[in-house]
Amino acid sequence: MKARVHVMLKNGVLDPQGEAVRHALGALGFDKVEGVRQGKVIDLDLAEGATEADVTAMCEKLLANTVIESYSIEMQ
Amino acid sequence: MKARVHVMLKNGVLDPQGEAVRHALGALGFDKVEGVRQGKVIDLDLAEGATEADVTAMCEKLLANTVIESYSIEMQ
Repeated sequence: MKARVHVMLKNGVLDPQGEAVRHALGALGFDKVEGVRQGKVIDLDLAEGATEADVTAMCEKLLANTVIESYSIEMQ
Repeated sequence: MKARVHVMLKNGVLDPQGEAVRHALGALGFDKVEGVRQGKVIDLDLAEGATEADVTAMCEKLLANTVIESYSIEMQ
């Protein structure tokens, strides 16, 4: 059983890493890029019986800093 | 127009960040986690007229280190 978690900075939180990527893409001639946000993706291999509630608990306790980050979970 | 790019370490490439997360989850009592791989997700805001081929070029030139990383692109 697999789960994929996306952790992104919340809207309104400055994303210097994304800004750096945007500048670098512009410098390379990719002028159609208007904005970049960078986040983390975490792929979890889970034993049988793990539920989405378990993954939510993992996000709340460890994977995301919920003050500045939001997360989304896809069970696969 | 938006594109989402996932950049993950290729299979077989050691992922110390993912291992650290796995250990930390185990220490917190999440014993159903068998493996963790961590990667990057990059959300691009693109001007009209940008194509998937443009995003592929961005990945090859800047966003992924194709020696050790693989990428996937979702146009939205």
